[in-house]
Amino acid sequence: MIQFQSPKGMQDFYPDERAVQKAIFDSLSKTARSFAFQEVEPPVVESLSLLTAKSGEEIKQQIFVLEKKGTEELALRPEFTPGFARMFVAKQRELVKPVKWFTIGKAWRYEAPQKGRAREFFQLNAELYGSDKPEADAEIIILAINCLKNLGFKETDFVVRINNRKLLSGLISSTISEDKIETAMRLIDKSTKLSEQEFELEASNEKLTKQQTSELKKISSLKGNPFKIINDIEKMNLAPQAQAGLQEIKSLLKLLPNKSVQLDLSISRGFAYYTGMVFEIADSSSKLRAICGGGRYDNLIEIYGGPKTPAVGFGMGDKTLTLFLEDKGLLPKISTGPDYFVANISAETQNYAQNIAAKLREKYCVEIDLMQRKLGKQLEYADSIKAKNVIFVGEDEVKSGLLKIKNMETGKEEKKKIEELV
Amino acid sequence: MIQFQSPKGMQDFYPDERAVQKAIFDSLSKTARSFAFQEVEPPVVESLSLLTAKSGEEIKQQIFVLEKKGTEELALRPEFTPGFARMFVAKQRELVKPVKWFTIGKAWRYEAPQKGRAREFFQLNAELYGSDKPEADAEIIILAINCLKNLGFKETDFVVRINNRKLLSGLISSTISEDKIETAMRLIDKSTKLSEQEFELEASNEKLTKQQTSELKKISSLKGNPFKIINDIEKMNLAPQAQAGLQEIKSLLKLLPNKSVQLDLSISRGFAYYTGMVFEIADSSSKLRAICGGGRYDNLIEIYGGPKTPAVGFGMGDKTLTLFLEDKGLLPKISTGPDYFVANISAETQNYAQNIAAKLREKYCVEIDLMQRKLGKQLEYADSIKAKNVIFVGEDEVKSGLLKIKNMETGKEEKKKIEELV
Repeated sequence: MIQFQSPKGMQDFYPDERAVQKAIFDSLSKTARSFAFQEVEPPVVESLSLLTAKSGEEIKQQIFVLEKKGTEELALRPEFTPGFARMFVAKQRELVKPVKWFTIGKAWRYEAPQKGRAREFFQLNAELYGSDKPEADAEIIILAINCLKNLGFKETDFVVRINNRKLLSGLISSTISEDKIETAMRLIDKSTKLSEQEFELEASNEKLTKQQTSELKKISSLKGNPFKIINDIEKMNLAPQAQAGLQEIKSLLKLLPNKSVQLDLSISRGFAYYTGMVFEIADSSSKLRAICGGGRYDNLIEIYGGPKTPAVGFGMGDKTLTLFLEDKGLLPKISTGPDYFVANISAETQNYAQNIAAKLREKYCVEIDLMQRKLGKQLEYADSIKAKNVIFVGEDEVKSGLLKIKNMETGKEEKKKIEELV
Repeated sequence: MIQFQSPKGMQDFYPDERAVQKAIFDSLSKTARSFAFQEVEPPVVESLSLLTAKSGEEIKQQIFVLEKKGTEELALRPEFTPGFARMFVAKQRELVKPVKWFTIGKAWRYEAPQKGRAREFFQLNAELYGSDKPEADAEIIILAINCLKNLGFKETDFVVRINNRKLLSGLISSTISEDKIETAMRLIDKSTKLSEQEFELEASNEKLTKQQTSELKKISSLKGNPFKIINDIEKMNLAPQAQAGLQEIKSLLKLLPNKSVQLDLSISRGFAYYTGMVFEIADSSSKLRAICGGGRYDNLIEIYGGPKTPAVGFGMGDKTLTLFLEDKGLLPKISTGPDYFVANISAETQNYAQNIAAKLREKYCVEIDLMQRKLGKQLEYADSIKAKNVIFVGEDEVKSGLLKIKNMETGKEEKKKIEELV
C-alpha cells in the first residue's frame, strides 16, 4: 500500500496549526486595512515571462514552472510584486492614486527547505503606487512596524534597518566604476553573512582591488543610530547621487518613530530594481532571518509596460514571523473546542436535539452526536473535543422545555430555555 | 512594450471584487464553523500520484502538472478530497472521530473557460470521516443548505437533489449486467444534458439494448417529491442492494428539512468512488450549473493507504455560487471607503496629523495624504476614495486640541477631542 506524503518543503496545517495561522493573518490583515490598504487577489499562476521580467533568467531556477498545455508558458508565483504590477498597469488609467494594495497568500520557491524557509509559504505583500514622497516610504515602514506591534511584539524586540540605494551607490561610485556598482552592492548585501576572509575572497573573484575592498568594508560597517551615521557620512566627500540619497533619508527619518530604527549601509536587498529607500526588519537578537523587507522601485511599473510610476512596498513571510512569535512566546492561543455539545439521551428525542443544535448554530459553534453513540460515549467525545458546554436533551427536557446545561470548565449546571440561549 | 495579461481562465480580483468575495467566504466559513467543522490548510501542490489515485489517468488531462525539479512529480490540486484524505491518513490514529474538516481555497482545472467555469477557482470543501450513519449524511447536506441560507437565499430559491448509489445500481442491475453498471450510471448522470435522441445514440454506442435503454430512461425519470418517488420504487421488484439503498434514503429523509429536498434518480455524480448517498444543489430555475455536490465514499480512505473509514463530503465552487447570488440580487454590498481621512492643512502640522492618524488606526481604517497635496486636492482624493469622515488638522486644531470632523454623507460637522474618538 502506498503511503502518500505532502511534497517536500510544503506543510499540512491541521486544525490547531491553522487556527494559529489564521489568527496571525487576521491580525496582519486588520493592520493593513487600518492603513487603508485594500485587499486584492491576483491569480497564483502567472505567465513565466511576467515572473522573469524584472529579475532576469536566474530566478527561473527557483520558479516552479507548469508543463505546457496549449500555448501559455505558466508558473507558480515566487513573489507578489509582478502580479500586483500587472494588475496596476491593466487599470492604471482609472485607478485613483496613490493606490494601496495588499494580499496574504501563498508563493512557491524551489530551494532547500530549512529553518524559516519552505518551498510553499505564505506572505503578506503590500504595495503603494503613485507617490514618490517620503510620506509613502514612511507609510510602508510604519505599516510593517505596526504589523509586528499588533501581534504583540515590543519595539525593543526588533530592529528596523533602513538604507538608501542612491546613497549606497553614490558612496560606492567614489571608488568603484559604474559597471561594477551592482556587483559591489550584492557583495555588501551578503557582507553580514560572510567572514572577513570570505568577503575578501569574493571581492578578489570580482576583480576588486584591495583598496576598493577595504572601502566597501568601511561602507558596509556604517550602521547604528541614524543621526550618528549621518554625521559620519556628512564628513565624507559625497557624490551628487549620495547627497540626494542622504537627503531622502533625512526626510524619511523625520517621519519615523526613533526607537527601533537604525541606518545600516550594509542593507541593499540584493535585487537591482530598487531605486531609493530599502529596509529590513529583524529580531533584535539576530537569531533569525529578516522578518520582512522592502523598498522603493520607481522604474518597476515601466518594466511591466506601464507609465513611469513611483512605487514602494514590502513583503513579510509567515515562516520567520512564526518562529519569531514562538521565540517570544507570542503565538496566539486559540481554543478550537465548540461552544456547545448537544447530548441526546434517547432515540425518541433525536429530532428535538437536532432542532436545539440547529437553533444554537445561528450564533454558536455546536457539535452533536453523528455516530448514534450512547450517552456515556457522547460525553467522552464532548470531553475529547474540548466542548465548552454540554446540553442534555432527554424526555424530561422535551416535556419541560428546560435544558440542562453543564459548563465543562467549572462543572456548574443550570437549567435554561432555548430562547434564553439564542 | 509587452502588455502582460493574466493567464486564460484565471481572474484578477480588484479591491471591490475581492471585498465581495471575502464577504461570501467569511459567511461560508462562519457557517462551517457553526457546525463544528474545523479549518485545515493543505498544500496547493500535491504529488501527481495522489491526485490520480482515485479517478484514474483520465483526470490527468485536466490537471496542471509541474515541470519536474528533483525527483518529485508534482501538480496543482484539481479538487480537495485527495489532500484531505492524505492528511487524515497521516494522523488517523490520533484523531478523534468523527473528524470534520473544511477549507476554502483555490483549485485548478485545465478546461475551456466558460460561464461558471474557470481554470483557477475557489472552492469550499467539507469532509466528515468516521461515521457511516445517516446523521453524518444529513449533517453534510444541512451544512450545504445552511451555507446558502446564511448567504440570503430562500429555501424556494434552490433545490436539493438526493440519490443513493446503492439504490441506483441495484435498480440498474435488474436489467443490466454487473460490468456495464458504471457505464449506465455515467449515462444516467449525463441524461439531463442530452436530448432523447442523443441519449439513445450514446446508449447504443455502449451496446445497450433498446429494452435496457428504455429501462434506464425510466429510472432516470424518477424525480420529485421523495415520498411519492419512494412509493413508486416500492412497487418495483427490488434487488437486495436497491432495498438497502432505499432504506438509507428513508433514514436520511427523516433527518432532512422537507421543503427543498427532492429524490432524483438521475443524480449519480459521475465518479465511480461514491458508495451511498449522493446529492447536488441547484437553483430552482435550472439556469445555472449545480451550485454544489457531494456524497458518501466509504472506500476512499483505503485508496490512500488508510484503514477502511466511512467518509462523506461536498464541494461548493465560487463561480456558480457568485452567478447565483448575482441572479438573486444577493451579492454582498461592501463599502470599501476608509472610516476617516485626516486632512492636513499646513506643513507645520504634518506630524500632528500623522499622530492623529496613528491613534485612529488602533480602531479604524484611516487614510492620510501621502502626496504632499494641497488641502483642496486632499479633499478631492478623500471624496474619490469614499472616505466616510474627514478630520481637519491645522494650527487652530493643534492649539485647541479640538478636531473638526465632517461626516461626508450627511455633511454635518462637529468638533471633538481625539480622546472622544478612540
